[in-house]
Amino acid sequence: MTQPLPAPHLGEPYLLTPGPLTTSYAVKAAMLRDHGSWDGDFCAMTAEIRKRLVALLGDPAFDCVPMQGSGSFAVEAMLGSFIPRDGRALVLANGAYGQRAAAALRVIGRGVEILDKGDFAPPRGAELAEILAQDPSITHVVAIHCETSSGILNPLPEIARAVAEAGRRLLVDSMSAFGGVPFDTAQIPCDAVVSSANKCIEGVPGFGFVLARRELLERAQGNAHSLALDVHAQWAELERSGQWRYTPPTHAVAAFLEALRAHEAEGGTPARHARYCANRDRLVTGMRGLGFATLLADEWLSPIITTFHAPADPAFEFDGFYDAMKARGFIIYPGKLTKVDSFRLGHIGQMDTHVMARVVAAVADSMGALGVRDCRPAPEAIATGEIA
Amino acid sequence: MTQPLPAPHLGEPYLLTPGPLTTSYAVKAAMLRDHGSWDGDFCAMTAEIRKRLVALLGDPAFDCVPMQGSGSFAVEAMLGSFIPRDGRALVLANGAYGQRAAAALRVIGRGVEILDKGDFAPPRGAELAEILAQDPSITHVVAIHCETSSGILNPLPEIARAVAEAGRRLLVDSMSAFGGVPFDTAQIPCDAVVSSANKCIEGVPGFGFVLARRELLERAQGNAHSLALDVHAQWAELERSGQWRYTPPTHAVAAFLEALRAHEAEGGTPARHARYCANRDRLVTGMRGLGFATLLADEWLSPIITTFHAPADPAFEFDGFYDAMKARGFIIYPGKLTKVDSFRLGHIGQMDTHVMARVVAAVADSMGALGVRDCRPAPEAIATGEIA
Ligand SMILES: Cc1ncc(COP(=O)(O)O)c(C=O)c1O
Ligand SMILES: Cc1ncc(COP(=O)(O)O)c(C=O)c1O
Repeated sequence: MTQPLPAPHLGEPYLLTPGPLTTSYAVKAAMLRDHGSWDGDFCAMTAEIRKRLVALLGDPAFDCVPMQGSGSFAVEAMLGSFIPRDGRALVLANGAYGQRAAAALRVIGRGVEILDKGDFAPPRGAELAEILAQDPSITHVVAIHCETSSGILNPLPEIARAVAEAGRRLLVDSMSAFGGVPFDTAQIPCDAVVSSANKCIEGVPGFGFVLARRELLERAQGNAHSLALDVHAQWAELERSGQWRYTPPTHAVAAFLEALRAHEAEGGTPARHARYCANRDRLVTGMRGLGFATLLADEWLSPIITTFHAPADPAFEFDGFYDAMKARGFIIYPGKLTKVDSFRLGHIGQMDTHVMARVVAAVADSMGALGVRDCRPAPEAIATGEIA
Repeated sequence: MTQPLPAPHLGEPYLLTPGPLTTSYAVKAAMLRDHGSWDGDFCAMTAEIRKRLVALLGDPAFDCVPMQGSGSFAVEAMLGSFIPRDGRALVLANGAYGQRAAAALRVIGRGVEILDKGDFAPPRGAELAEILAQDPSITHVVAIHCETSSGILNPLPEIARAVAEAGRRLLVDSMSAFGGVPFDTAQIPCDAVVSSANKCIEGVPGFGFVLARRELLERAQGNAHSLALDVHAQWAELERSGQWRYTPPTHAVAAFLEALRAHEAEGGTPARHARYCANRDRLVTGMRGLGFATLLADEWLSPIITTFHAPADPAFEFDGFYDAMKARGFIIYPGKLTKVDSFRLGHIGQMDTHVMARVVAAVADSMGALGVRDCRPAPEAIATGEIA
């Protein structure tokens, strides 16, 4: 049994959202200092962050390039910097973030195909192998690790195997999973992985980072469609001077370094994965006990966030539920499915099973306040959640 | 006489740099809370920021669009979103930031001409008028307000007049000046102005903002070369839902709102301008008293940052000076000139003339420690600083 985590500062609500999320007070307190972006002390912080992230991935063939902006900026930077102008990418989409990667590719003028699996069905290795065999023009495959819009953990190892066997290159959006779900490049061979400061490493938002094979970085000069979103140029400047190319979000960087140290102190990715899985299990068990149903079967649930069907009971409506949960100290997240009514509860951030128990109690209480007697979804809704 | 400003927290050094800069403790303390980016309270903060920035510009024909990333990201977003794909821009360059705007235009594939005035000579209205008369293919002019690489305050009113008279459109990078130097759209008619959180408004880095004519925003759909750096799309989402399109840097946003309130409480741009001018005057007088020479004549000095010639005395070297100043509690800034040795001292941020007096004393002390007896530059260097 571990000690309960300390409660957030000043009674602020817990964020049951997949980043920004609830960070520790120590992480936030690291922002109480202004750093000169050119100063050696700050460059040392950047260097430590890069080194720690490469160590987290555990593959010395990779290097780490932080990128200002939100996670989507880092995704676009990865796509524009590593897919050559005459390249052609297949995006494996089963939700909003796969669709966004495809949209970025279209805007920046790279060739793009989509394997569109709808709201949540996972792309499988066999169908991917077939597409790649039939279309030799595809040079790159873009996959989403945890598709946060449903919470599904996509089967990256079988995807990566199909890509490698077809001799293509894999780029991974592991935004919401990296540091909270193990990522072994022996199991998941790929060219680059992207994530951001405010997800499983539990920092504050302000930048993302790309982990990419060093030999790829060396060859990426001049690919990018943008001056700012150029992973090669950022990397080259970091290698040359130790500085970010343009002003870094110094406070978010300081917070992230604190968060990385706490991640290590907790026991690294395995320990964090265990805590998040325990959070999910406590939450899902509790919610099912109230009558709620998850969108996905257990084997597809991620440790990051879980989608629940909205109750069929006509007394339920999301806005009232949101307000009731907020009044009880929890910020929840709307669903992002196109076909069924749902809501999402995240289980990453500075939270443990003690907090999850309180979440379930607050949901029960909120249902009472809304006058919802039956938390079960409509039977038709459940059927839509089944994966063929 | 105003009260001295409180010293930075915990004895941290003052940043004599043009952003990141020394912020107040209250600004940093606003980051001690995690906000849900989807939550109504956070959307209200975003709305207040946008409203306050439009009020600071003082022209209700404009709207404000914040953009994640550093200031350069916002500049590139402005250029890509407002210069149509078949447009052609003339960049008025007299330093690194003008050159960077031109580089961005080249990468994103817009037509670009440069009026290159070297390291600091100001682009003048008359020469601009002549170029525009001779080249009708130029649709847009890009100007830098304070070119931070030398500290020169460019003559925006005469530039804007020449652009307007030629019937072209003006885009302004006022990164380091906005909120600290008055900007009157009646004097400086333009389409858009860009700045960022960590300059004269004295917030922390993490995002920039574009102030643009609303009718321009309405017509900018589909222009951008990037999914993330699309000012129109960000604006449309803010108008629709009150939310940023992708995860905002919530802590930097909270800090910025605090900074905007403090900016108003101080007396707005006029008061801040007065404080920064007094800082500059105290600094320049003190430095000249020690024998140092400014790169520029008084009429071209900005209230933001001042470039000083390096002393000719062979005992002077920048790295030793940097360390000596850091040991005395001040982080200084290297020069950014290509032709003469120089260094820069910024005078924006939570500093007043009391601090400036201590800066001068620390410089004197550091010179003693380095064994520099004569702070005057080589006579040839001075000549290079003269503007024809
Ligand atoms: C899988 C995935 N990709 C991309 C993003 C986009 O990140 P951001 O909102 O920081 O731009 C997210 C955000 O949650 C995500 O979960
Ligand atoms: C005039 C000007 N433009 C652009 C920039 C770039 O801003 P950032 O370093 O935040 O990308 C700066 C930074 O100091 C600047 O002073």
